[in-house]
Amino acid sequence: MDRRSFIRTAGIGGAAAALATPAISQGNTTWRMVTTWPKNFPGLGVGAQRLADRITAASGGRLTVQLYSAGEMVPPLQSLDAVIDGSAEMCHSAAYYWQNKSPALNFFTGVPYGMTAQEYGAWIRFMGGQEIWDEVYDQFGVQAFPSGNTGTQAGGWFRNEINSLEDLKGLRFRTPGLGGRVWEKMGVTVTNMAAGEIFQALQSGTLDAAEFVGPYNDLALGFYQVAKNYYMPSFNEPGLATECVVSKEKFQALPEDLQAIVRDCCQAEYDNVSADMYANDPRALKTLVDDHGVIVRPFPDDVYEAGAKAATEIMTELRDSSDAMTKKTAESFLTALALLRTRTEGTEMPYLAAREKFYKI
Amino acid sequence: MDRRSFIRTAGIGGAAAALATPAISQGNTTWRMVTTWPKNFPGLGVGAQRLADRITAASGGRLTVQLYSAGEMVPPLQSLDAVIDGSAEMCHSAAYYWQNKSPALNFFTGVPYGMTAQEYGAWIRFMGGQEIWDEVYDQFGVQAFPSGNTGTQAGGWFRNEINSLEDLKGLRFRTPGLGGRVWEKMGVTVTNMAAGEIFQALQSGTLDAAEFVGPYNDLALGFYQVAKNYYMPSFNEPGLATECVVSKEKFQALPEDLQAIVRDCCQAEYDNVSADMYANDPRALKTLVDDHGVIVRPFPDDVYEAGAKAATEIMTELRDSSDAMTKKTAESFLTALALLRTRTEGTEMPYLAAREKFYKI
Repeated sequence: MDRRSFIRTAGIGGAAAALATPAISQGNTTWRMVTTWPKNFPGLGVGAQRLADRITAASGGRLTVQLYSAGEMVPPLQSLDAVIDGSAEMCHSAAYYWQNKSPALNFFTGVPYGMTAQEYGAWIRFMGGQEIWDEVYDQFGVQAFPSGNTGTQAGGWFRNEINSLEDLKGLRFRTPGLGGRVWEKMGVTVTNMAAGEIFQALQSGTLDAAEFVGPYNDLALGFYQVAKNYYMPSFNEPGLATECVVSKEKFQALPEDLQAIVRDCCQAEYDNVSADMYANDPRALKTLVDDHGVIVRPFPDDVYEAGAKAATEIMTELRDSSDAMTKKTAESFLTALALLRTRTEGTEMPYLAAREKFYKI
Repeated sequence: MDRRSFIRTAGIGGAAAALATPAISQGNTTWRMVTTWPKNFPGLGVGAQRLADRITAASGGRLTVQLYSAGEMVPPLQSLDAVIDGSAEMCHSAAYYWQNKSPALNFFTGVPYGMTAQEYGAWIRFMGGQEIWDEVYDQFGVQAFPSGNTGTQAGGWFRNEINSLEDLKGLRFRTPGLGGRVWEKMGVTVTNMAAGEIFQALQSGTLDAAEFVGPYNDLALGFYQVAKNYYMPSFNEPGLATECVVSKEKFQALPEDLQAIVRDCCQAEYDNVSADMYANDPRALKTLVDDHGVIVRPFPDDVYEAGAKAATEIMTELRDSSDAMTKKTAESFLTALALLRTRTEGTEMPYLAAREKFYKI
């Protein structure tokens, strides 16, 4: 609670003032939202700001959310710790950044050859995903809500063309997380580095290739200036979700209407970020191709195939994990994915194939 | 506003009471939401109830939404008129039910060979769709927000197998709207009838075939008992959106925080209904196949092709409409669709194809 607002308003007194300004009359609470995204980062950073603004507006200022971009309060990869130690009330991030706390957290962002944005929503909201996520985060005194989804990402920027699996051997590629482990199994030398360092490393030849998000974000970072081959789609990041993590204790201490507002705004913004990326990725890709001479290529089939083999090994390992929560999460995810694929492959894909083939308006 | 609540509370007076119960101290407003869906109708009717409950909860009861299922207050297809004439404040429905008021309204639900749920969200929220929708509805003193999406629907229940376009000639098929016009152009005898009448008509042979929504809804209506051939996917209903329509005057008279809550809850529920359908359609389909002997079939290619030709003719007609709003809407929709297809066909589809082909976990 912002104590000064409370005291100032309480000092006014009287029913008339209270009736006219009920929000202030209750005292306003201000929450600090730290994020892992740079300020105004397309899609994700902008989505975090919109989420903060939505909660503030829907609560009439009773819960005012103040956003701190990456590094403004804490380094980006300390965002979750800031919520755990109480220096912030919420963070906007991606659960797989915290896989060192629990490998189960990978699944709540997305995994290689995993779910699309639509499949992820179905798993989280109607197939037990949220409940398991709550259980994982409960160990750390926090809880999370999905707050956005990038959709299927791009595969990456390559200085040279990739014509077969052979061409990957020894290639120095920037890609993080489980996706990085998939590429390692395929013979690639994987490194991770922050967004701001990639351009220079590609330019100097320290890197042969790098992947980040997709056209909307990648255009802003200027990779097209130093690598022209843009491979897509990614098979490691088919629909990555962001999260809004809150301190469980502080969240549960909120009045029920404010709890509802936080939940509803997160879900609304989940939809909004997905729509933002879906609308602006193709616009950005058009600019990359038309104005910057970027060449879009699919990976060769043997790369997709080897990636699937590597992803299967990693998923099997997680499903057989000795950590009970990781095992439980992997089992729930893979069971849901198997059912959801019957929908995607039996309904969505044949529709899209018919439209692609026959509808030429 | 509920005047009794207001008067009762105002009578208490004093700052302490007002501080303790700010919601009631402002007076609670109750809004009536009429719907075109039967009570507890899977996905859509349930989603309407959840939307009513969400708004009530997020507003702490300051805006209490009372749901009236189809027929409880007005016949389902008079829902929009009830909002226009003031007997209800909002309705939960589908814009294409009101195409007689303006053919432009078809696009805000979905059209043959049109957008998927994800593409629709991108168009509405980031490519000008909402602004045009506002303009169309402004003529009637209302405004609308998307409130759910069925995803790609099923093609329909057929008593006999369809092996080619020829088999469609003279077939008596229940399917409404522009989709019905597509089938008519393909030689089918199209009729429309309410959900509750379909089963009997299929059983008696008055109908040879019928389509409704998808497995989740169709299972509940029992069509599998009288027709075993379940064709999917639909090419006419690839991602149909529902709407929440509000009286513009009453909406704009709400305090800004309540306006925000209505908007946020509609968008959250848009995501939620999509997830509900995506999770529960494949569950229901499994039941239909495993327990009820339903045979799932794709339409033959010449049917998809003839459908695309018919859909192109209808879309061209709408784009060339003499009604300025219809023309404008069709142009915006088709321009957005062309760009969004580059994303769907260049990124989503190749990812899904690689997963289908190589990822066998």
